[in-house]
Amino acid sequence: MSKIDAYLNDHRQQFENELSDLLRIASISADPAHAEEVRRAADWMVEQFKKLGLATEMIETAGCHPMVYAETPAVPGKPIALVYGHYDVQPADPLDEWISPPFEPTLREGNIVARGATDDKGQMLTHLKSVEAWIEAIGSLPIQVKFLIEGEEEVGSRALGRYLKDDGAKKLACDVVVISDTSQFAPGRPAITYGLRGIAYFQLRLTGPMQDLHSGTFGGGVTNPANTLAKMLSALVDDHGRVQVPGFYDDVAPLSEKERKAFADLSFSEEEFMNQIGVSGVTGEEGYTTLERRWARPTCDVNGLTSGYQGEGEKTVLPGRASAKFSFRLVPNQRPERIAESLELFLRDRCPAGIEMELTSSTASAGFVISLENPFLAAAARAIESGFGKKPVFIREGGSIPIVVDFHRVLKADVLLLGWGLSDDNTHGPNEKFCLADFHRGIRSSAALWAELAKMDEE
Amino acid sequence: MSKIDAYLNDHRQQFENELSDLLRIASISADPAHAEEVRRAADWMVEQFKKLGLATEMIETAGCHPMVYAETPAVPGKPIALVYGHYDVQPADPLDEWISPPFEPTLREGNIVARGATDDKGQMLTHLKSVEAWIEAIGSLPIQVKFLIEGEEEVGSRALGRYLKDDGAKKLACDVVVISDTSQFAPGRPAITYGLRGIAYFQLRLTGPMQDLHSGTFGGGVTNPANTLAKMLSALVDDHGRVQVPGFYDDVAPLSEKERKAFADLSFSEEEFMNQIGVSGVTGEEGYTTLERRWARPTCDVNGLTSGYQGEGEKTVLPGRASAKFSFRLVPNQRPERIAESLELFLRDRCPAGIEMELTSSTASAGFVISLENPFLAAAARAIESGFGKKPVFIREGGSIPIVVDFHRVLKADVLLLGWGLSDDNTHGPNEKFCLADFHRGIRSSAALWAELAKMDEE
Repeated sequence: MSKIDAYLNDHRQQFENELSDLLRIASISADPAHAEEVRRAADWMVEQFKKLGLATEMIETAGCHPMVYAETPAVPGKPIALVYGHYDVQPADPLDEWISPPFEPTLREGNIVARGATDDKGQMLTHLKSVEAWIEAIGSLPIQVKFLIEGEEEVGSRALGRYLKDDGAKKLACDVVVISDTSQFAPGRPAITYGLRGIAYFQLRLTGPMQDLHSGTFGGGVTNPANTLAKMLSALVDDHGRVQVPGFYDDVAPLSEKERKAFADLSFSEEEFMNQIGVSGVTGEEGYTTLERRWARPTCDVNGLTSGYQGEGEKTVLPGRASAKFSFRLVPNQRPERIAESLELFLRDRCPAGIEMELTSSTASAGFVISLENPFLAAAARAIESGFGKKPVFIREGGSIPIVVDFHRVLKADVLLLGWGLSDDNTHGPNEKFCLADFHRGIRSSAALWAELAKMDEE
Repeated sequence: MSKIDAYLNDHRQQFENELSDLLRIASISADPAHAEEVRRAADWMVEQFKKLGLATEMIETAGCHPMVYAETPAVPGKPIALVYGHYDVQPADPLDEWISPPFEPTLREGNIVARGATDDKGQMLTHLKSVEAWIEAIGSLPIQVKFLIEGEEEVGSRALGRYLKDDGAKKLACDVVVISDTSQFAPGRPAITYGLRGIAYFQLRLTGPMQDLHSGTFGGGVTNPANTLAKMLSALVDDHGRVQVPGFYDDVAPLSEKERKAFADLSFSEEEFMNQIGVSGVTGEEGYTTLERRWARPTCDVNGLTSGYQGEGEKTVLPGRASAKFSFRLVPNQRPERIAESLELFLRDRCPAGIEMELTSSTASAGFVISLENPFLAAAARAIESGFGKKPVFIREGGSIPIVVDFHRVLKADVLLLGWGLSDDNTHGPNEKFCLADFHRGIRSSAALWAELAKMDEE
C-alpha cells in the first residue's frame, strides 16, 4: 500500500479543495427552489467519476432528482462492493445561527464547516478518493467497486426505492454495500455501526375556522386547532416516555443483555453528552440508559410546529390552522405501515368537533441490525484499524438510512456502515462540520478496505 | 336635528374618502418596522381635529406611540363625554389570504375592506364626523366632547395606562366615556355592550439543546422542547373545557339566571354561527351555551406556535427551542396578576429536566360589566334608535378593551360601548371589513347621542 499511501499524502490539499467545491453547491433536495443546485451536484459527481475513467451514467427518474452510477472494471472471483452515498443535503435554516454561510465552506479548528460537510458529501467522497488513489497509484482496483450516489436521501430516496424495485437490482448486484453516513463513537474512537433505527415521519394538519378569528370575540365558542394540536401531540407520549399509539411496542426487538452490557462498557459519559448539547438534564423512556434510548429504543419527536401569529409582539387570534411535523424512530421488527394505521385511528379518536384533520405519512422505513459475527465486519475492522491506527468499536446508531433496509432485502447483500463523522458534527443543524483529519483517515481506511475485501476469498 | 341630518347626507362621500385616507396608513403598532406609519396616522388625526377648530394636542410618551387629544368648548351644567378610540391596527398577516392588499381600501358589497376598517378606524371616526356635523351645521355642540385617540390599543395601551396614572385624569375628567370598538349583535340588530372580557396574554419560550439536533442521532435521549410545549399547553385545559390553572375560577362572577335567559332570548343561531366561520361543530366549556362561552366565561386559547422546521418537505430535527403565544380571556372579578402567578407555578411544575422555561406576561386586564339600570345606557339606546331606526339589544362581548377598566376606575366615569361593527368583520384576521351603511348610521347615532346626553340633566 505504500504507493497508495504516497498518493494520498501528496493529494491531501486537492481532496480538500474538491470537497469544498462540492460543498459550495446548495443541493437541498427538500426545497423545489433548489432543484437546479441539486442537478449541479449530480453533474459534479459525474465529472469526478469520468475523470477516473469509470463507466459512469446519470440515472434519471421523472419528477425525482438524478442518481449517479459508476463502476470500476469487474474482477472475477472477488467480491463486488457497492458504495452508496448521497450528494443532497438538508435545508440550512435557521440561517441566522450559522457562524459562516452554510454553502461557503470555512476551515475552523481542523474542521470544514458547511451544510453537507459530514452528511454526506465529505464522508461519501472518501470512497471516491480511495478509488482514485488505487487507479492513479496502482492502475486498477483489487475488487470491483460500484458507486450509487443519490440526490434524495434527505427526502426519502424515492427514485432509488423505485429503481431497486424495478431494474436496478441487476446493475447494483454486489456482495457488500459500503456506506459512510454515520459517526465514530467519539473523537479517536472509530466505530462500525451494526444497527440503525427506522423512521416513520408524519405531517399533521388541523383546520378549524376558515380563517384566523379574533380570540376575544370568538374564543371559548370555537374549537381552537392550536390547542387541539397540543392535545393530540401530548397524547402521543406518556409521562414515562412511552409512546401511546396502540400496538407501538408489539414488534419491538428487545435489547439483549449482551448488547446492554456492551453499550455500558463503552464508558459513555452522560455528563459530557449533556455538556456537548448544552442541557442540564435529560429525560426519555424510563428503564433505559441514554445510549439505549438513542440507539435501540423507539421514540416520538416533534420536528416542527406552526400555528397562528409567530411574529413580534402579541396578536389575539384564534388560529384557523395548526400543523406539526413529527416522527417516530423505529427499532428492528417494528413495521412503519402498521404504526401509521394505528396512529391515524389514535389521532382521529382525539379529533374534536369543529376540527378537520389531515395526517400524511412521508418517509417510512424499518430499522436494521446485522449479526456481530458477520465476516465483512471483521474485514472492515482491519481496514479501519489500518486507516485510523485504532481498532473500531461496534455500535448502533439512532439515525435512519432508509435505503439500507432495501439494499439488504433486494440485493441480498450485507451492509457495512463505516462512519467517519462525529456525533457533534451538527448534522441537520446549523454549523455542520467534518474533521479534515478524519476525512483523510476515512480515505485511507477505504483504500485499505478494497484490499481487505479482495483477501476475503482467500481466507 | 334636520340641519345635522342634511349635513350628514351631503357629506357621505367625503366621510368615506377620509376613512379610506386613514386606512391607507399601515399603522401596525406591534411591529417596530411600522413606527413611522403609526406616527403618520397620529398626524392625520391631529389635522382632522384642527380643521374643526378643536383644541388639539399630541401627547408624547418616550418609547411609546403618541396619543391624540382634542376637545370642544366646555358647556357648563351639561355632562362631559370622552370619546376614546384608537388609530393603530393589528398586523395584517397572513398576507396571502387577503383578496385585496390590507392597506389599499377596497369597496366590496357595501363594505370597505382594509386592515383597521372596523377595528377601530372606521368606528372611531363616526364620532369625529358627528362632531364635525354639529360644528358645521349648528355652530357648536350641546355638551363638551373630548377625544382621546391612542396608537397602542393593539399592544396594551402602555402610554395611556401610564398617562391615566399620572396627570391624565384631570384632562380626561368626564361623566361618560363613549367607545365604538365592538359589534352589533347581528346585521340590523344594533347593540349596546354592557360587559367585556379581560385578558391575560403570555409568551412561553422553552429552550432545550443549544441548537437543533438530528432527531435520529439524539432522539429519545434528549428532552424535546416541542414535545414539552405540547404537554404544557395541553395541561392548561382539561377534556371538559375547564382551565386547570389552580384558582383560575375562584373569583369568576357567575352568570345570573336573568342574564342567561336574556342571552337565550337573543335567538342566536348556532348553525348560522358555524356556517359563518366555516366549521361543522363547536366545543367549549361544558354546561354553557356558545354565547355564554364567548361572552361571559373565561377561556384559554393558543394564539401562536413556533418550533423546529416549518418549511416544505420534511426535516428530521429535534428542535432547540419551542414557543407559544397564548391568552386567557377573563370575566369580571378574575384578577390577571393572580392568574399569572398561579400559571407560572403550574408550568414550572411541568417543566422537565433539560428544558429552560421563560414565561412572559404582556397585556393583562380585568373584565368589565356595568349595571343594566345605568341611565347613560338609556340615553345611548335612544340615540341608537334614532340613528339605526331600531332599538338596540343589550349584549356582552368576548373581546377585551383593557383601557375600559382603567377609565372606569380612574375617571369614575361610566362607559358606553356602542358598537357599529359586525361579528363577521374579520377583526384581527384577513379581509377585515366595515359596512359603509353602518358607518353612516354610526355617525347619525353619535350626533344624536350628544343631544341625548345634553337632555339628561333635564330629566
